[in-house]
Amino acid sequence: MLEERLKSVIRDIPDFPQRGIVFKDITPILKDQQLCSEIVDQLVAHLQGTKIDAIAGIESRGFLFGMLLANRLNIPFIPIRKQGKLPFKTISESYKLEYGQATIEVHEDAFAPGSKVLIHDDLLATGGTVVAASKLLEKLGADIVGYTFIISLDFLQSQGRLTRFTDRVISLVRFDA
Amino acid sequence: MLEERLKSVIRDIPDFPQRGIVFKDITPILKDQQLCSEIVDQLVAHLQGTKIDAIAGIESRGFLFGMLLANRLNIPFIPIRKQGKLPFKTISESYKLEYGQATIEVHEDAFAPGSKVLIHDDLLATGGTVVAASKLLEKLGADIVGYTFIISLDFLQSQGRLTRFTDRVISLVRFDA
Repeated sequence: MLEERLKSVIRDIPDFPQRGIVFKDITPILKDQQLCSEIVDQLVAHLQGTKIDAIAGIESRGFLFGMLLANRLNIPFIPIRKQGKLPFKTISESYKLEYGQATIEVHEDAFAPGSKVLIHDDLLATGGTVVAASKLLEKLGADIVGYTFIISLDFLQSQGRLTRFTDRVISLVRFDA
Repeated sequence: MLEERLKSVIRDIPDFPQRGIVFKDITPILKDQQLCSEIVDQLVAHLQGTKIDAIAGIESRGFLFGMLLANRLNIPFIPIRKQGKLPFKTISESYKLEYGQATIEVHEDAFAPGSKVLIHDDLLATGGTVVAASKLLEKLGADIVGYTFIISLDFLQSQGRLTRFTDRVISLVRFDA
């Protein structure tokens, strides 16, 4: 099964980015592009029957599979970036981190109002970034129709934070502890 | 011709990221994934006959087409990231910016010594980042076999900085002024 194969490849990095956190390193997946294609196959299979106009990917790791998925589905890719990186007119959304805050941005002309947008990131942890991304896109009139993640840290119980936007939350690998 | 079509889509943003610089915005390209696929087609055509073991993409915009190209060629993708972002053991390389300096990193186990590595970024400007990336990969024993860019700012005459590594420098869109 794909989930078991991915679990065997994803690497645990203790105490990154800070003490007490076990980071899930996806870089070994990127060495096996056949596996990457199977990830996209599986995401596409989960999304069968969902009308999607565009994929929004969150900088930086969300660009990797977000772009592959958009290319496979032949629909636009929308980059969501950290503050100050996008060159055209942007709107922004700030959110709290454990210490301090972060701001993400999207181009004002990234998509037409009413577009059905799927948000992609590599990993769902506390959900802070992806909730901010959802609010950001809704400000421009997006209809959030789904989320895809390679990994979700289910023990953080963040999925409930997303269901106010849509209940289509797809994750290929779930960690319960 | 692809170059003309790309030129008609790439957007000039004056005074970004600072006064006096005209930034080439590739985000409109990402809205047309058919065009993105043609970019990959063209890069692959240019690389015919070049033996490549892996594609290194430079964070963040180099992840977009770097990942598509690696996936198409079915060879590993190596992320080169800003300092502090990669979770496993890294080596790093610093380089000068107009004001201050920047540091990029790669995982120590990103590829085997002697691997033939192609470096991808979206745009060649002064070449500072891509020269640093080349030194970084050479430290780990890479044989740099080529560079691909979507855009090169030929008026900055940076291509000569890359030919000490390899003379295979591919760019789909050239701006002479």
